Amino acid sequence: MEHPDLDTTVIDARLAAAKEASYLLARATTAEKDAALERIAGLLRDRTAEIIAANALDLATGRESGLSTGLLDRLALDERRIGALADAVLEVIALTDPIGETVSGRSLPNGVRIDQVRVPLGVVGAIYEARPNVTIDIAVLALKSGNAVVLRGGSAAEQTNRVLVGVLRDALGAAGLPADGVQTVDDFGRAGARHLMQARDYVDVLIPRGSAGLIRAVVDEAKVPVIETGAGVVHMFLDESAREDWAVELVHNAKTQRPSVCNALETLLVHRAAAPRLLPAVLDRLEASGVTIHADERVRTLRPEALPVTDEDWATEHMSLDLSVGIVDSIDDALAHIRRYSTKHTESIVTNDLGNAERFLNEVDAAAVMVNASTRFTDGAEFGFGAEVGISTQKLHARGPMGLPELTSTKWIVRGAGHVRA
Amino acid sequence: MEHPDLDTTVIDARLAAAKEASYLLARATTAEKDAALERIAGLLRDRTAEIIAANALDLATGRESGLSTGLLDRLALDERRIGALADAVLEVIALTDPIGETVSGRSLPNGVRIDQVRVPLGVVGAIYEARPNVTIDIAVLALKSGNAVVLRGGSAAEQTNRVLVGVLRDALGAAGLPADGVQTVDDFGRAGARHLMQARDYVDVLIPRGSAGLIRAVVDEAKVPVIETGAGVVHMFLDESAREDWAVELVHNAKTQRPSVCNALETLLVHRAAAPRLLPAVLDRLEASGVTIHADERVRTLRPEALPVTDEDWATEHMSLDLSVGIVDSIDDALAHIRRYSTKHTESIVTNDLGNAERFLNEVDAAAVMVNASTRFTDGAEFGFGAEVGISTQKLHARGPMGLPELTSTKWIVRGAGHVRA
Repeated sequence: MEHPDLDTTVIDARLAAAKEASYLLARATTAEKDAALERIAGLLRDRTAEIIAANALDLATGRESGLSTGLLDRLALDERRIGALADAVLEVIALTDPIGETVSGRSLPNGVRIDQVRVPLGVVGAIYEARPNVTIDIAVLALKSGNAVVLRGGSAAEQTNRVLVGVLRDALGAAGLPADGVQTVDDFGRAGARHLMQARDYVDVLIPRGSAGLIRAVVDEAKVPVIETGAGVVHMFLDESAREDWAVELVHNAKTQRPSVCNALETLLVHRAAAPRLLPAVLDRLEASGVTIHADERVRTLRPEALPVTDEDWATEHMSLDLSVGIVDSIDDALAHIRRYSTKHTESIVTNDLGNAERFLNEVDAAAVMVNASTRFTDGAEFGFGAEVGISTQKLHARGPMGLPELTSTKWIVRGAGHVRA
Repeated sequence: MEHPDLDTTVIDARLAAAKEASYLLARATTAEKDAALERIAGLLRDRTAEIIAANALDLATGRESGLSTGLLDRLALDERRIGALADAVLEVIALTDPIGETVSGRSLPNGVRIDQVRVPLGVVGAIYEARPNVTIDIAVLALKSGNAVVLRGGSAAEQTNRVLVGVLRDALGAAGLPADGVQTVDDFGRAGARHLMQARDYVDVLIPRGSAGLIRAVVDEAKVPVIETGAGVVHMFLDESAREDWAVELVHNAKTQRPSVCNALETLLVHRAAAPRLLPAVLDRLEASGVTIHADERVRTLRPEALPVTDEDWATEHMSLDLSVGIVDSIDDALAHIRRYSTKHTESIVTNDLGNAERFLNEVDAAAVMVNASTRFTDGAEFGFGAEVGISTQKLHARGPMGLPELTSTKWIVRGAGHVRA
């Protein structure tokens, strides 16, 4: 797809329009925002044929340019998928609107009243890959929390996203809210994405969603603050006292229940003293589900046919049915391994030893730290948030699964009666 | 002061040592951290002579290089100031330790228990100007909240800071905590500061403290997430219905009570219909306190001897006894002016009209928005936080006065009994 040279006048006009719209969206009532979401769901169904036609163009271009079948599948929309997208929009309507919530408040000794209330972030920039469902998903979450949104999807989905952005804008307008609350910079290609990442005057936060490579590129290039939703090199440690039945099922569930997501298990560490007791059943269960074991030398004495694990494996988020497995001498060695290779997403211990459970929970530095639970639980829906913006692996602003409140800021409302400072 | 070429091996070793120390500090009990703070206060008093001697070297260099008397005053330490610094350290001991607080928690429907608990950020990088008190101040707040800290003070305070960093490290060691929890990169000059700003592997957050120029430079250069503690172009709007006595006292207090700080008033806007009634008394009271008025054309019809205000004035944080004053036709014009020039720190309306008060509170986008109160109240101590890390003017993580909780993150603790995801 050819893109025009970047005309910063045009792109800045869009960003400025998003900023202006953000002030109106910030004051929209919950009912007004919900009405817009209902319109979005309705228009997605009404314009299904148009969306599918645009998507067919993207798919054809993708096939020509040799996109993998996996990527083509993520790009593809059909009637069923569009229906599911519309249903997901309706589910967001049911969520509590975080805007206006009083987070804290008190009267100062002099009688001045201070209240910290939730307000939208303002303009949210979203940078993601060629998955058109993300266009609807992130825009709807941003709008429900009173934000304007500027979208930059993968160029392979450009035709589809153009129609979807039209749906979003039309729905806002039809609901009496500013259509300019949804903008795209897709038609400016990479230069547009770069401009978006620098636009501190207009954009309040950037949320990259996608591969580790995309997120790293955004973090490296952005001047706008970024919420990093990161990769998961997720570990499970089977301690000396781990129950065999739990160990077998927890490892199996964490690795195989959905291997392509960030909370799936990538590395299994087993205490030396428990390895002969636990590993045969654990590995049998995994292999029966088609998992490829990448084993260290000590594991290979028990399972000689396993592939040897490499140092690169320990640091890799496979997102496939591959698992790195190692034996460690102690919980200290397990903690040291995790500290070295963890991406600080989710780490879990299986143990019956209270002291070791508490040590692991206290000492491991990650968004979620677990005892005797599958790492697959680190998830907005499982945590009861209803919808998930992503899973933050950074420490500022939000950590772990992010719901609607994580798309907000606060401001202090101060009410006096002529109060001056002494 | 000559600096060696940057040896990244040496500087990275310090950052890595800070990271290692941060794991130990994260697990330190409140009693252990408070004991270290007590040692810091004690050593400040014990080594007062040494500190003053080092400070004399900095002052001599500063005088030679033509540092202004204002900067020299901010750089200077004497016995009284060191005593006050030690007292301030003791006050931090009395603050509630935020670490370990359960922020939220619940049992999921399947019985899995999730708790969101406060943990330290890890390693805090502080970049500030030649004010040696900031060295102690920021380090003590970081340590109380379980963080390690890497300091980069203004080079004009290098000798003083070297001794103060020694005090901090010795106190940590004497209290049984890792001395490496306090590091400096002062001896690497600007190259050290630049390296610190890029060190995402070691540093979790950067806090710049100082002038707008310093903060902008850090925001522009940093790859590490920054908490922006920004400048305040602070407005007050006298609405048509404003009480004269409140208007006079609020404007006077906001402008003159401490003009050199970020929550001091910089621009006064007055409703056209109220100007003849309010402005004479308001301006008389200001001028009696030595305030220089920079007035727009309409104000100058009432006060012809006032200086004309420039467009640059409207955008300037004077931090002096200068005030820009303008007349607006309506609250809408006041809101538009504020939206254009606000740095989103603190904005205040003086009014008796409930509708206009609510409009102002809702529509102005700033860390603190006030009705009938002096802008000088935007302050950690006034808000009851005990100590203040700075006043955040950004929307992510923290907004407004930051206390100890703003130097923390959270992590999710998940406890199951062999729970797998269905």
